[in-house]
Amino acid sequence: MLLGKVMGTLVSTQKEEKLRGLTFFILEKLDMQGRPTGAFVVAADSVGAGVGEVVIYAAGSSARYTAATEGRPADATIVGIVDTWDLDGSVQYQKGAED
Amino acid sequence: MLLGKVMGTLVSTQKEEKLRGLTFFILEKLDMQGRPTGAFVVAADSVGAGVGEVVIYAAGSSARYTAATEGRPADATIVGIVDTWDLDGSVQYQKGAED
Amino acid sequence: MLLGKVMGTLVSTQKEEKLRGLTFFILEKLDMQGRPTGAFVVAADSVGAGVGEVVIYAAGSSARYTAATEGRPADATIVGIVDTWDLDGSVQYQKGAED
Amino acid sequence: MLLGKVMGTLVSTQKEEKLRGLTFFILEKLDMQGRPTGAFVVAADSVGAGVGEVVIYAAGSSARYTAATEGRPADATIVGIVDTWDLDGSVQYQKGAED
Amino acid sequence: MLLGKVMGTLVSTQKEEKLRGLTFFILEKLDMQGRPTGAFVVAADSVGAGVGEVVIYAAGSSARYTAATEGRPADATIVGIVDTWDLDGSVQYQKGAED
Repeated sequence: MLLGKVMGTLVSTQKEEKLRGLTFFILEKLDMQGRPTGAFVVAADSVGAGVGEVVIYAAGSSARYTAATEGRPADATIVGIVDTWDLDGSVQYQKGAED
Repeated sequence: MLLGKVMGTLVSTQKEEKLRGLTFFILEKLDMQGRPTGAFVVAADSVGAGVGEVVIYAAGSSARYTAATEGRPADATIVGIVDTWDLDGSVQYQKGAED
Repeated sequence: MLLGKVMGTLVSTQKEEKLRGLTFFILEKLDMQGRPTGAFVVAADSVGAGVGEVVIYAAGSSARYTAATEGRPADATIVGIVDTWDLDGSVQYQKGAED
Repeated sequence: MLLGKVMGTLVSTQKEEKLRGLTFFILEKLDMQGRPTGAFVVAADSVGAGVGEVVIYAAGSSARYTAATEGRPADATIVGIVDTWDLDGSVQYQKGAED
Repeated sequence: MLLGKVMGTLVSTQKEEKLRGLTFFILEKLDMQGRPTGAFVVAADSVGAGVGEVVIYAAGSSARYTAATEGRPADATIVGIVDTWDLDGSVQYQKGAED
């Protein structure tokens, strides 16, 4: 999984039938210190994420192994909202403590 | 999924039997602000896209999970025509408003 | 799929049993203008390609969805010989018109 | 597989149901000399790894082929704790001999 | 597939049960002229390769389609020992002729 920050929503009306009902977010990828990288991915949501949240997403075939995306042509899916992570014992990110 | 702009069509007469009937587009990848990146992919179409449109495409095994590509050796498939997306509340792209 | 030019042949006698009978080509990847990139991949052939031809190849699990490679440990397979493609209405490559 | 060093733990309470019970580690990727690269991945654990250990992890669909991750939306899983490796007959890393 | 040179062996005692019995090699990736690139991968062996040999390996799900790795969490597997390859009619590598 990789880290991303939910930056916005993408709307597509004319889409593959199997994608109907999914929410698509633009995620900016974060590095392991939690800094934005400029890189992004469009991910389906399986956890009820919202704009501004930091999440982990699964890519590739594993993106289809959620209740929301099973059997659907999604190659990136948000699978968790991040509470916190640390590196070498030092907290890098804490939900609710963002500046 | 990633963002691409449909730049043109690729024709291949001598191809794997299972690819017959598919349309192949050259997609230039866009960044999350909607700017061209110079990178590209050849994608099968599952939604009736056309040259000039901005689309999302699925890569890898998920590219085979559309009605058009099931069981076929496609590793990139257009799965939606994009209407709009925003970042931090600011619209980055709006279909029909292209310059 | 990506674009490649067939640059040569790779021979491997001592190989996984399931790869027997496949032809392996060295493909140099091309950009969307048809220029060589220096990057390459070793691809199995499913279409009867030959050295010098421009092809599209499928990577990942989709490389196993051809008659030639089904159930075999190939992660890149040539799936079409390219006749032509265009960008913004301008032909970038036409088979038989190479310099 | 690639090499990583377990740098810390990631906590996600609101996550896909199928991920419950898994431990997620932040792995910094190492080069083949064992040096940190700055790149990272969030990996599920299948072997009882701990912070500070050097591990190999599997990515993509193979990340789901462990007892811990079968059928779950994990795209990176730690599959072994590394004892040692060598290059050209010279030991690059020996567990327990870290500085 | 990509080209690699077998540089050394990796030992992992505490590993996923399904990986038991496999040999893991450090492969340095080669470019299409056969030159080392500095990049590497840890690959399972399915062909009886040895240190110093030039091989092709399959990545992703195809790495599980060998007799040695079926159903196992390996994402890179050596699938052939290379005898020779050429580019534009010029031999780039010939087994046994290494300097």
